[in-house]
Amino acid sequence: MRTEIATLGEFGLINRLTKDIKLTQPTSIKGVGDDAAIIDSGDKRTLVATDLLLEGIHFDLTYFPLKHLGYKAAVINFSDIYAMNGTPQQITVSLGISKRFSVEDIEEFYDGVKLACQVYNVDIVGGDTASSLTGFTISITCIGIASDDAIVYRNGAKDTDLICVSGDLGAAYMGLQLLEREKAVFSGQENFTPDFAGKEYILERQLKPEARKDIVEELGKLGIVPTAMIDISDGLSSDLLHICSQSNVGCRVFEERLPIDYQTAMMAESFNLSVATVALNGGDDYEMLFTVPLSVYEQIKVVPGIHIIGHINDASLESKFVTRDGHEMTLEAQGWKASDE
Amino acid sequence: MRTEIATLGEFGLINRLTKDIKLTQPTSIKGVGDDAAIIDSGDKRTLVATDLLLEGIHFDLTYFPLKHLGYKAAVINFSDIYAMNGTPQQITVSLGISKRFSVEDIEEFYDGVKLACQVYNVDIVGGDTASSLTGFTISITCIGIASDDAIVYRNGAKDTDLICVSGDLGAAYMGLQLLEREKAVFSGQENFTPDFAGKEYILERQLKPEARKDIVEELGKLGIVPTAMIDISDGLSSDLLHICSQSNVGCRVFEERLPIDYQTAMMAESFNLSVATVALNGGDDYEMLFTVPLSVYEQIKVVPGIHIIGHINDASLESKFVTRDGHEMTLEAQGWKASDE
Repeated sequence: MRTEIATLGEFGLINRLTKDIKLTQPTSIKGVGDDAAIIDSGDKRTLVATDLLLEGIHFDLTYFPLKHLGYKAAVINFSDIYAMNGTPQQITVSLGISKRFSVEDIEEFYDGVKLACQVYNVDIVGGDTASSLTGFTISITCIGIASDDAIVYRNGAKDTDLICVSGDLGAAYMGLQLLEREKAVFSGQENFTPDFAGKEYILERQLKPEARKDIVEELGKLGIVPTAMIDISDGLSSDLLHICSQSNVGCRVFEERLPIDYQTAMMAESFNLSVATVALNGGDDYEMLFTVPLSVYEQIKVVPGIHIIGHINDASLESKFVTRDGHEMTLEAQGWKASDE
Repeated sequence: MRTEIATLGEFGLINRLTKDIKLTQPTSIKGVGDDAAIIDSGDKRTLVATDLLLEGIHFDLTYFPLKHLGYKAAVINFSDIYAMNGTPQQITVSLGISKRFSVEDIEEFYDGVKLACQVYNVDIVGGDTASSLTGFTISITCIGIASDDAIVYRNGAKDTDLICVSGDLGAAYMGLQLLEREKAVFSGQENFTPDFAGKEYILERQLKPEARKDIVEELGKLGIVPTAMIDISDGLSSDLLHICSQSNVGCRVFEERLPIDYQTAMMAESFNLSVATVALNGGDDYEMLFTVPLSVYEQIKVVPGIHIIGHINDASLESKFVTRDGHEMTLEAQGWKASDE
């Protein structure tokens, strides 16, 4: 009996492996299934998030500078803690390193991690280093804190809630496409220096993303507690569907409401890609996706950098993407199918 | 400028990367440099330990059953928490998986992790799975708790303290040598079934190690708080030198006191290896190595499974291994040199 992992996909595999796991420790508040695990620590909660990054899968060192990679590897873990409405405090950094890398290479990577820690006020408290036969492996675990009543889960979205997203979408994905194209064009040449003028924004979104600490803090100042929240790592579509399935609701997302930077739109055009597809499925955005009650509409609509892109509806109405011309397509984790086909 | 990592070694690299790290968060009690990091959580301390295991470096799936690998990967993290005199409570499990593996393979691995969690009362609370281009990558982080006054560091060993070790040494290493030899002998043959009769103990020590929860609990019952403690993963020599350097002391370890199982001794003989070398440098023992004040000698000497193998002395007297015939050799992380050469 051999089932290929591809037939289940990442989330199917995780579900199959973890579906019978019971929490037995009194301090285990929340296990698998949100941005971070939650552990009881007396008057506070400890949050734990972890990410594994593998060379050739998550990053390509041909164009990804090691310092940026260190920065990004740390930031995406901070983002998971912010997505629970918590504050990251410590990380452990484990590295698998092949002989190809020098001490200076690893120092450069670590400089990026340290810079991120400095910017976000996080301490490096441990880790592990090991030889690797193949490529570079990065495993970072982030510990955060939150007060019990502040934690925002994925499962609290309610019918009529507004769906909000910070920043803009799809830029990191187009940055990646650009880097991949230039890599192919300059393949075999030493010291290739492609012209990236006018494309700095999408490159920075791929190579040096930031966690939306500012958005989480702003919501806190306004006294707005989202009913559900997640950070966008796999793409708006995929991550919004996590909120919907865990909250047992459906949603409507409107094409005309998607926030898209002009560099993203231009690059999508040059790649002959639908910019809506890019925004929905691009991934690597690390923007905050959250739902709030309709009652805070007047408050939330004026917050700079937050966009209302749709609303939650009853599960029976399913999850749909509404195009500019009013067509409804079924929202899917990768791409979407027209619901009337 | 390119410095090969081999010139620094694992500990040299970690030291270079982490030497300028400052802890800035008030909740960061202890960072890099012990078995686990320590985080303030109100009336308790949260402990965080992490291990990265890479195929071809840390394990060979030719002879390492996936279920055993899952069990071991979890247990070695629990061991780090026990080595701080804490109790493991939660783990996160991150896996990098290549196409070679089926869903059933990964379930088998996970069954081993789950079994270990059941035996040690630990919850799986999160993790990450990713595709890997090459081989199997395992990153486990363990969260434990301890009360502040119970935590045992590596740096508390004092002159005249007794050096104690649980169980016996070198068995896991000889189990590994046996497996490697049989792999070479049966190379190319399908369904090889080597005869392991009479060698079960050393194989089990390699393939299904246990964390010494029982020893830590026994010390607790006796009211004995070690002055320093570490679990033996890299080998007695290497791990004892961590205690010595961090405690700023030296030590004497006596060959005649080393606890060695007869299967280990016989296998070392058949490989023409010095059994003392195997016990000192074998690694993978996951026994507890700790120091206690001389005043508890009468108490500790009668505890089953605990062996007094030497004593701590002033740093000026250095760290030495004393052979049966009274020769003193300098204790080194890998092997040792005769001090009179």
